[in-house]
Parts: sequence; structure tokens; C-alpha cells
Amino acid sequence: MTDTDIAILGLGPMGRALAAAALAAGRSTVVWNRTPQRAAPLVEQGAVLAPSAGDAVAGARVTVACLLDYSAVRACVAPVRDRFGGTLVNLSSGPAAQARAMADWAGQHGIDYLDGAILTPAPTIGTPAATVLYSGARRSYERNRRTLEAFGGTGVHLGEDAGAAAAYEMALLDVFAMSVGGLAHAFALAMAEGIEPAAFARFARGIGAMLPGMADRFADQLTEGRFPADISSIASAGSAMAHVADAATARGIDAAPLRAVQRIVDRAVAAGHGGDSYARLAQLLGEPAA
Amino acid sequence: MTDTDIAILGLGPMGRALAAAALAAGRSTVVWNRTPQRAAPLVEQGAVLAPSAGDAVAGARVTVACLLDYSAVRACVAPVRDRFGGTLVNLSSGPAAQARAMADWAGQHGIDYLDGAILTPAPTIGTPAATVLYSGARRSYERNRRTLEAFGGTGVHLGEDAGAAAAYEMALLDVFAMSVGGLAHAFALAMAEGIEPAAFARFARGIGAMLPGMADRFADQLTEGRFPADISSIASAGSAMAHVADAATARGIDAAPLRAVQRIVDRAVAAGHGGDSYARLAQLLGEPAA
Repeated sequence: MTDTDIAILGLGPMGRALAAAALAAGRSTVVWNRTPQRAAPLVEQGAVLAPSAGDAVAGARVTVACLLDYSAVRACVAPVRDRFGGTLVNLSSGPAAQARAMADWAGQHGIDYLDGAILTPAPTIGTPAATVLYSGARRSYERNRRTLEAFGGTGVHLGEDAGAAAAYEMALLDVFAMSVGGLAHAFALAMAEGIEPAAFARFARGIGAMLPGMADRFADQLTEGRFPADISSIASAGSAMAHVADAATARGIDAAPLRAVQRIVDRAVAAGHGGDSYARLAQLLGEPAA
Repeated sequence: MTDTDIAILGLGPMGRALAAAALAAGRSTVVWNRTPQRAAPLVEQGAVLAPSAGDAVAGARVTVACLLDYSAVRACVAPVRDRFGGTLVNLSSGPAAQARAMADWAGQHGIDYLDGAILTPAPTIGTPAATVLYSGARRSYERNRRTLEAFGGTGVHLGEDAGAAAAYEMALLDVFAMSVGGLAHAFALAMAEGIEPAAFARFARGIGAMLPGMADRFADQLTEGRFPADISSIASAGSAMAHVADAATARGIDAAPLRAVQRIVDRAVAAGHGGDSYARLAQLLGEPAA
């Protein structure tokens, strides 16, 4: 018996945003959190606070788990596995292998399961700017699609492999973390050289603007397996990186991230790929080390 | 006596692009390269090939050096220092300290000097997409501004500090190299998980699109010295990075760059800044290690 549209397990910033979006979309919403105090503002907006995780999932057509990681999800749902009536949609972060294992576990216990990954920050949830990826049985996705639209923006079903959303999320977090790390490092270096942050931001914006086109070129070259250095070569990037790392070190700024990238570039040059484009680095990283 | 508009020292891809743009803008152009064969296509377009670096600089109002690094520039111009009539504009890459040292050296020998940095790839030169930064005496910049416009796009004079253009270039290369390294790493991880490159690029484009806004937030927060985690906190990023690095390692993909970023994040969390925004990382990197 299902008498609620959406149950939300976990009321961190993202769980709270999901619950608020569900309420704003007019969905009956049950919330649960280990520390129930977090639920108060949502209850004021119309959510029902469940006294236990089991009570939350029992009557819900869609149960959304938004917890720290897959271990936390397992710890939360395993004791109440017999009370699921609807679909468990796990939007917690973790490696693809754990998403696949979770889907297997759910299947073994007769729980309809979708995995998912939220690509945009909590403030976007319920707005057109949200992007949420789903993976797992298409039937389960189609059945709950309208309900999941409450979270806003773009919802994409990637396919039957339950690990796909997590795989995308991991790889996107990879480029995001490196870019943010690079941005922090670059601001530190600029400021050490006496450049005002706002003046530096003016030009740093332009670097971000180059990345979308670069992602497309990477995809084209990796698909074709050919790596012409039509814009810049690995070897020239390597010599520039050495300059930057030396400049950072001279200013007492930890250059370890850049040196680690440089070692990958050096490996590519040593393997005879110095004249190729950057996309060759992706191929090389995917090959077992010699 | 000056009888040429522009002399180009160094005919790598960038030097050739600069010479071609000068010719296209109707400037009389002399070129010189250690291996003169490189000059042939430019001579066909109207450039004069100088038999020596000294002959190139002797008659030129603007001499542009576009060589491997500052050592190469010094090695090229020092022997002909008495033959300069016009301004030496050094667009070679290198650390700010070397740019300042070069400016001092030029001043000691009575050579009018501007330092500069080209922010965009060779194919942009002579088009509206080019961006070139200059630093050093404003008088020297203003005197040569019209001539330098031949290189196209946006020319910006950053100020009297001859090291400024090099400092900007280093810091921008920093974020660029880290972002490209992250992109290569992310494609490797995605492909190891069975994701098609083109499918991954569709979402990776969105990460690049987030960076310009992030650069602006970094600048605002670093200027104010306050780091509210309005979107995401250092601590949550740290736990996500650990997931990603583990996923890469599990697939046999070198996770050293990401681990190096994570160590900086861990240092921030240990220092009590886990609840702050990413911009705090830039401030922390600029402080001497404990």
C-alpha cells in the first residue's frame, strides 16, 4: 500500500533541497533524518516527519536516499528492506561498482531500484538549472519519471547499467575537482605575484570558456583514435607546466598537483607522444603502466 | 635609423603566426630564425629574411622575441644589444622574475623594453580572438600600440611592473594545465567505465561552463577575506575526491594529481576550514606551510 508520493531519507543540504522541491511540486512528502531536528522547516512547508526510516519507506511510491555514501544507504535501508512498497532511488554519491552492488542487493530483496547522480548544486534543485542522471531498469525510470520531475531541470536516463550514473558522476567530479584545485592554485600564484583577485578573475574566466570546446575535441579524437596536435602539443604543454610549477615553488606554494600532472605528460613524451594533442593523455592514462 | 615596422625573432608556430599577422596588417616585416628554412613561406608573403639576429633588430621599430624561454631570448639578443634602435617586445614564456630581470638588463643597455604574454593559441593571432598582455613602461606601450594591433584581438597593458604579463600567464597556465589534466583523467575514467567519449563530453561541457562564475566568486571572496560555503564546502569536496581517486585507482588509472589536490583539501580541513568555500584553498596555498 502506498499513500505518499515521495519519501526522502537524509536531510543534508541536498536532501532538504529535494524535499522542498517535492513539496513545491505539490507532491505528498515524507522525510526522515537520523537527527530529526533538521526536518522542522520542511514540516512547516507541509512535509510529514516519519518516526523511523521504515515508516518513511513503507507508504512511499518513490523513496529517495540522499545520504553520505553507499554504506550509509545500506545501513539505513537494509533493516527495513521488507517494508518497501515503491521504488528506491539512490541519489547518494559513490563509485559505480557500489551502485551495481546496491542494485544487485535490491534485486535480491525484491526492491525496485534506480541509481542516480545529481550533477548540480543544491540551490539548483527544483529549478530549470538542475541536472540529475538516472540509471537502472528503464521500466522503473519510466514508471517514476513524472514524480522525479519535481526535482526540476533535466532528468536523463542513461541506460540499464545501474552503475552508469555513478560512473558519470565520478568522472565529472574528477574534472571538476581538478579544475577547482587549479583555480585555487592559480589565484594563490597570482596573488603571490601581486595581482588583484578581481583583475585575475577577468582573464581566468576565459580559461573556463575554453573547456567545453576542448571536451568536444577530446571526444572526437578519442573516438577516432587519432590525436593530431592541431592547437597545442603535449610536449609544449609539458615545458609550460614546468615553468609554472617552478614559479609556484619559488613562491612557497605547494606545486604537487601540477607536478603530478606533469609526470603524466612526461610519461606521454617518453612514450613518443610529445607531438600529439592532449587527448592522447586520456588514452595513455587508461592503458596499464609499462 | 629604423626602416622596418616589425622584426620577429623566432619562427616556431607562434612566431610564424605573429609574422603572418604583421604582413597581413600591411606592416613591413623582417624575420629571423636559427634555422632559416622556416622563413620560406613568410618570405613568399613579403617578409624579409634577415641574415642574422643583429640585422633583424637593427632597423626595426618593434622587435618581437618569440623564443623557447628567457634564456633563449638573452642568448639571442645579448650579442646584438648595441644594434637595437626600437623597442624589444618579449612575448616568450617564463616566470615573472625572469621577465623583471630581462627588463633590468634591457634598461642597463639602453634598450626600450616591453614584456608580454600571448594567452590564446597561434591560430587566433591576427583575428579578433587573440588576447595579448603587455607589461612595462606605459610610454613604451603607447608608442608601439598601433603596431602591436597587427596581432589582432585584445591587447591589454597591465602596468609598469614588467613581470605582470608573465605572472598572469603563469597563473592562467596553472588553471589551464590542471583543467586539461583533469579532463584527460576524467575521459580515461569514463571510458574505463564503458562510457562513450561523445556521451561523456555532453556533460563534461557543463563543468567548463561553471568555471567562469566560480572565478568571479573566488575573486569576490578573496578580496573580502570571507569564505562562506554558499554552494559547496571544502569538506564535502574532500569526501567526493576520495571517492573519485578510489574509483580511478580501482581501474588502474594513476590518481596522483587528484590525490595531490586532496592533500591540500585535507590540510584545509585539518586547519579548521572544512566548512568554508573552495576559495579558502587559494588563501591557504598562499600561506607558508605550518
